[in-house]
Amino acid sequence: MTERPMKFWSWGLEGEGLDAEESNTLLAATGVALGSSEGTALSVPNVEDFDLPIPKVGPPDTLAHLCTSDPKDRLIHSYGKSFADVARAYLRDLPCSPDLIAYPESEQDVANLLEWADGENVAVMPFGGGSSVCGGIEPAVGDGYAGVVTVDMMKLDKVLEIDDISRAARIQAGVYGPALEAQIKPSGYTLRHFPQSFEYSSLGGWIATRSGGHYASVYTHIDDFVESVRTVTPAGIMESRRLPGSGAGPSPDRLIIGSEGAFGVITEAWMRLQHKPKFQSSIGIGFTNFHKAAEAIRTLSQSALFPTNCRLIDANETRNMGAGDGSMSLMVLGFESADHPTDAWMARALEIVDDYGGIYDRDFLTAEGSNKAGAAGAWRNAFIRAPFFREFLVPHGYIMDTFETSITWERFPVFHANIMKATADAILEVTGHPGIVTCRFTHVYPDGPAPYFSFSARSTPEKMIDHWLAIKVAASEAINANAGTITHHHAVGRDHRPWYDKQIPDLFSSAMQGVKSRLDPNGIMNPGIIVDPANRELGYQGMMSTASLP
Amino acid sequence: MTERPMKFWSWGLEGEGLDAEESNTLLAATGVALGSSEGTALSVPNVEDFDLPIPKVGPPDTLAHLCTSDPKDRLIHSYGKSFADVARAYLRDLPCSPDLIAYPESEQDVANLLEWADGENVAVMPFGGGSSVCGGIEPAVGDGYAGVVTVDMMKLDKVLEIDDISRAARIQAGVYGPALEAQIKPSGYTLRHFPQSFEYSSLGGWIATRSGGHYASVYTHIDDFVESVRTVTPAGIMESRRLPGSGAGPSPDRLIIGSEGAFGVITEAWMRLQHKPKFQSSIGIGFTNFHKAAEAIRTLSQSALFPTNCRLIDANETRNMGAGDGSMSLMVLGFESADHPTDAWMARALEIVDDYGGIYDRDFLTAEGSNKAGAAGAWRNAFIRAPFFREFLVPHGYIMDTFETSITWERFPVFHANIMKATADAILEVTGHPGIVTCRFTHVYPDGPAPYFSFSARSTPEKMIDHWLAIKVAASEAINANAGTITHHHAVGRDHRPWYDKQIPDLFSSAMQGVKSRLDPNGIMNPGIIVDPANRELGYQGMMSTASLP
Repeated sequence: MTERPMKFWSWGLEGEGLDAEESNTLLAATGVALGSSEGTALSVPNVEDFDLPIPKVGPPDTLAHLCTSDPKDRLIHSYGKSFADVARAYLRDLPCSPDLIAYPESEQDVANLLEWADGENVAVMPFGGGSSVCGGIEPAVGDGYAGVVTVDMMKLDKVLEIDDISRAARIQAGVYGPALEAQIKPSGYTLRHFPQSFEYSSLGGWIATRSGGHYASVYTHIDDFVESVRTVTPAGIMESRRLPGSGAGPSPDRLIIGSEGAFGVITEAWMRLQHKPKFQSSIGIGFTNFHKAAEAIRTLSQSALFPTNCRLIDANETRNMGAGDGSMSLMVLGFESADHPTDAWMARALEIVDDYGGIYDRDFLTAEGSNKAGAAGAWRNAFIRAPFFREFLVPHGYIMDTFETSITWERFPVFHANIMKATADAILEVTGHPGIVTCRFTHVYPDGPAPYFSFSARSTPEKMIDHWLAIKVAASEAINANAGTITHHHAVGRDHRPWYDKQIPDLFSSAMQGVKSRLDPNGIMNPGIIVDPANRELGYQGMMSTASLP
Repeated sequence: MTERPMKFWSWGLEGEGLDAEESNTLLAATGVALGSSEGTALSVPNVEDFDLPIPKVGPPDTLAHLCTSDPKDRLIHSYGKSFADVARAYLRDLPCSPDLIAYPESEQDVANLLEWADGENVAVMPFGGGSSVCGGIEPAVGDGYAGVVTVDMMKLDKVLEIDDISRAARIQAGVYGPALEAQIKPSGYTLRHFPQSFEYSSLGGWIATRSGGHYASVYTHIDDFVESVRTVTPAGIMESRRLPGSGAGPSPDRLIIGSEGAFGVITEAWMRLQHKPKFQSSIGIGFTNFHKAAEAIRTLSQSALFPTNCRLIDANETRNMGAGDGSMSLMVLGFESADHPTDAWMARALEIVDDYGGIYDRDFLTAEGSNKAGAAGAWRNAFIRAPFFREFLVPHGYIMDTFETSITWERFPVFHANIMKATADAILEVTGHPGIVTCRFTHVYPDGPAPYFSFSARSTPEKMIDHWLAIKVAASEAINANAGTITHHHAVGRDHRPWYDKQIPDLFSSAMQGVKSRLDPNGIMNPGIIVDPANRELGYQGMMSTASLP
């Protein structure tokens, strides 16, 4: 039906990724770091390799023109972009598939689809860019439904209105990052929200999952950019009023932001825009001691200078991305503004950096295009290319994954040590080989950082899923035991649900069930996500259904 | 029982307020502005003037030591601090009274009180500082309850823990602003949250009502300072995890922030602190054209300079507070920092001010203590004294009140004109005399200001409540019709409920009822507030029960 050129088994479009030289270099470097792979590499999967079950449900005549059961469409909507997704695709291990994919062309189409699904007990999976790395779009809904329809919002991709005075735009939820930016750029604006998934994720997905942009401080979360939001629920349409701020009761927007499709389908939002930055400066700073660097970042984050970039990448991760020899952690510090030169800001920030012994070359600071040069530039390139690495390592049985959290500063040193150890120990224990675990900060707050952990391990194609699951469970347990959040910006999905349930207050869970009972009384929306009590009673779905949970 | 020296009929403590000279000056100036008062001035009310009904319910033995039905205590907990409250007190017009006032000394006491109330169908009114100006603490709960107990949290007034590294503190909800600041000051911190009610309002009240601090931009709302919150509900205790940021589902904190006691009693919270500012600069800037000044503020608010003060006070309000002759609007612009001199920030801000024709004297900027001098200082003094004015004007039949909202910038000019006109027209129509209506901005956002309107009118002691109600309804209607929020930081309470119901999506109201059904299944918590569906079915309570609502 819709020719989505998206790879169903990995990140990006078909034909996109690393060239032969890049992938060989990556594979060789991984072999050096983790040991050579064992067994035969898996081949790239084809649609024909999969024996999709016959759809349990078909669309009514009135909606048939929006729907397809094409096998490729079904595969694209069966797998997210997590390690487990890529691994299962390479192994031709088919998770649950949607029976139907619908591509609504209007909000009314969405409402009609929900009305039909609600009447027929068909589960509805909202789908933005499909970039979930936590089982967010996997249609693992259990046995209680007549079928599953995935509602892919890609055709609702327009910026409908731009308010030049208040710097806001009314935007359809299905638009991807680049198309969104392209539509507002002629007016001099940017949403300035750049999650790593930017190219293949949508506005609606960002809102539904509380996406974090890649800016380090102050306004970076999608939460802060939403001025109002419109959602089609099985009970009807809910739209909040456009307001710059309000103190009238609990925020209606904050109920929808992070709801992961459990209450309805976000169709559009008024989003706060920014002027395109005119002034930019960025610099890479080395630290011989990771925790000293973290102290510097803490001071910076408490200074109210609000750097736009303030990352910390530990020494091993810095080396892994080709920006060092492993002896120094890297801080990437940047300021930008559409209004004013940022010299005074950077000057003060560098005074703080000096206080903590940061090492840097001022020449990089003043160079034109400095934010794309030097260590900071190397980091930026690695950041953009990273999502493509996985598909070249997974077929050889290498596990590579990331997880992210946040924690207050006073607990960070112990937290960091415990998470690093728990993950490394789990890798060694389950695979029999030492792995690599690294840490960076993606966001910093006055009261704590958002640490992002990357790990890689040598396994085999046959065992890699079981190994990954055991490591994932161990890392998630460690995060929960050390009082972090199970996700800072990747969302909960199905994979994080067991720890989300431990993290949130039971009464909040009950409160969200109360919300669900009003907005989605028959429980057709994204079953298993966030609030579905059945998950607690019947066991977790998706990857976690096969995990050995503590 | 507890000797609260608080005036039950007005703002502040007994004995506090204006001296004879100040009040005579105020009265004379008001007479010049609005015309001399008619009729006999009302006398200051005494407890003995009120014939309180016999309490319908008494405490069980186990809770008796926490409770009182002392008449003065009951009066203090019968009236908030709105115009209507002061007027009714002077007129000896007693609104609903609580049967009991409980002063819990621990969280367990709160839990025990709720358990008893839940079992006996007694309505529970949480009470912080009692500074509500919108019927938030008035026990107008209808006829469906065995009685009403007001739970006054004043004894839970301790800072329990300070985290020096993450700059956060665990604080009991009953603490008032000054006591809170006094307890964290020795550690070099401030919560830096200064609502106008600061002296007589509590942390729990700020959280429950989504209080706005008096800082103009970026982190100023209590919403942003809450790191985690703990609430006793009839269904049990709900506490969120301390996290600097999280993307795990809808925010549990944001459900409680703004819930106005409808779900439970907030007992404590981890709050983000700030270092005490070391660098401060502030200046008053005149503008001959209000809307030109608003344009300047819009540009400032979109500059990401994040001024700590960025108010705009229209020409009439500037004159009323003694800082001008009525020919110029006043912008109060300030920066402060605990970390760095703010020269570069102020310099760029003044360039923007220059672009819009702002008039100012640079000498004030550099003067020591400049934030307390000049027009900015005059405004600051008026701001702090203003809550005391009302009790000296109300007995003479003068109406003075304020209301506040927010609106996006592109709609502001028309919005402002419509609200000013609707309010002025209503005053003239109902009182027969022209009144005064002025406007200032209390907060500014990149996408819009928070306009704060003040009005005063000449009425008579006999008619002032009816007159006020008609003006209040007209102003509220105008705000709603022009798509503003019915409150930006004063809260909803009972007085704003009819327009809150129009403002929020019906499905959000339903969702909040779903929450209520889980956290407060028997509906004992602050009936009539925010989510109580009975209000829609049975009519509004409090002042609005006598209003002629459109």
